Amino acid sequence: MHTDNLLKQIDFIKEIDKLKYIQRKTKLFNSDRHENDAEHSWHLAMMAIILAEHSDKQIDILKVLKMVLIHDIVEIDAGDTFIYDTSKNHVNTEEERIAAKRIFGLLPVEQAKEFIAIWEEFEEGSTDEAKFAKTMDRFEPLLQNVSNNGGTWTEFDVPYEKVYDKKKAIKEGSELIWNYAENLINESVDKGVLKKELTNYKRNE
Amino acid sequence: MHTDNLLKQIDFIKEIDKLKYIQRKTKLFNSDRHENDAEHSWHLAMMAIILAEHSDKQIDILKVLKMVLIHDIVEIDAGDTFIYDTSKNHVNTEEERIAAKRIFGLLPVEQAKEFIAIWEEFEEGSTDEAKFAKTMDRFEPLLQNVSNNGGTWTEFDVPYEKVYDKKKAIKEGSELIWNYAENLINESVDKGVLKKELTNYKRNE
Repeated sequence: MHTDNLLKQIDFIKEIDKLKYIQRKTKLFNSDRHENDAEHSWHLAMMAIILAEHSDKQIDILKVLKMVLIHDIVEIDAGDTFIYDTSKNHVNTEEERIAAKRIFGLLPVEQAKEFIAIWEEFEEGSTDEAKFAKTMDRFEPLLQNVSNNGGTWTEFDVPYEKVYDKKKAIKEGSELIWNYAENLINESVDKGVLKKELTNYKRNE
Repeated sequence: MHTDNLLKQIDFIKEIDKLKYIQRKTKLFNSDRHENDAEHSWHLAMMAIILAEHSDKQIDILKVLKMVLIHDIVEIDAGDTFIYDTSKNHVNTEEERIAAKRIFGLLPVEQAKEFIAIWEEFEEGSTDEAKFAKTMDRFEPLLQNVSNNGGTWTEFDVPYEKVYDKKKAIKEGSELIWNYAENLINESVDKGVLKKELTNYKRNE
C-alpha cells in the first residue's frame, strides 16, 4: 500500500518537472531572461517565509507555502495566463480545473483531494492564507518590472490604472507591503515608466 | 522598525534571484536542458511535501521545507559543487560559509541567524529533518539520471560504487524510498548504464 502510494507520487514528481518549461511574460530582475513557473514558485515560497511577519493576520505558513509552490502547476496543461490579458479571464477557467484534476489526480486519492482543495482555496482568495499567498504572487512581478524599467507594463503598454487594479490585492495580505508597493507604482508613474490611461488615449489620437 | 526589516528583506529577495542562473550538472527529466538551482529547490520542496509520509521519523515538515528551499543559496557565491567531483569536498567549504554569512546577512539580524542555523543543520545532516531533506536532495537527481539513460553518471564516467556511496544517504531518511532507489541503481547496472569499477578498469587496460 505504501509502495503503491510511492509509485503514484513518483509519477507526479516526474510530471511536474514540466513546470520548468512554462515561461512567464515577466523577466528576472534586471534581466532580459524570462522567468519560468518553477523558478517563480520557488521565489514566492522564499518570500512567504521571509515576509510572513508582515502579514496582517495570523497565518498558517505551511499552508501558504503549499499554495505558492503548487499554484501554477495547472499551467502545465493550461499554459501561462498573463495577468493583463484582456481576452482571457484568470479566474479559474474550466481549462485549469480540468488540468488540476488530471495532474493532481496522479497522486494517491487523499493527497490529490488535499492539493486540489489548496489550489481552489488559493484561486478563490478568500482565506487569510490565500490572501497572503496572493500578496506574494502580485508583489514579485512588481519588483521585477520596476527593476526592468517597466518590464511587461512597457512591453505590453499596460496603463497605470490596470496595474493599480491588479496590485491592490497586495493590501489584502499586508498593509505594510502594500504601502511599499504603492510607492513603487507611484514612483514608476513619476518616472514616466508607467503611463496613465488618459496619456495613452491622447497619444493614440 | 518594521519598514527597516522590509527593506532588508527586499534586498535579500532581489539577491537570491541569482540562484536561477546557477546551473547544475544534472539535466531535467528526459531532457538535454540543465536544471538550475532555483528549479531544483522548488522540486525538492514539492517532493518533501508529497513524500513526507514515508519519513521513518516524525519530522517538522516546515523546517524541512526551509532547508530544501535555501540549501543551495550559498552557491550564488560559491558556485555549484558537483557531487562526484573528486577535487572539491562538498562538506561545508570555507567558501560556502563566507557565502552564507554574506547572503543571509542581508536579512534582519534574527532572520539571518535563523537561516544560517538551518543551512548549517542541513549541511551537518544529523537531525531527522536534515536527513529527510538530504533524502530528497539525493533522490531527485537519481530519478533524473535514470530518465536520461545515465545522465551525469554516463557523462562523467561515474562508477556504480561512487553512485551507491552517495545515494545510500537516502536510507537515513526513508527505508521505503531507499528500497525503490536501490532497485533503480541495480537496474541501471543490469542495463549497462551504470558500470562497476572493475569493468571500467578492464576497459582502460
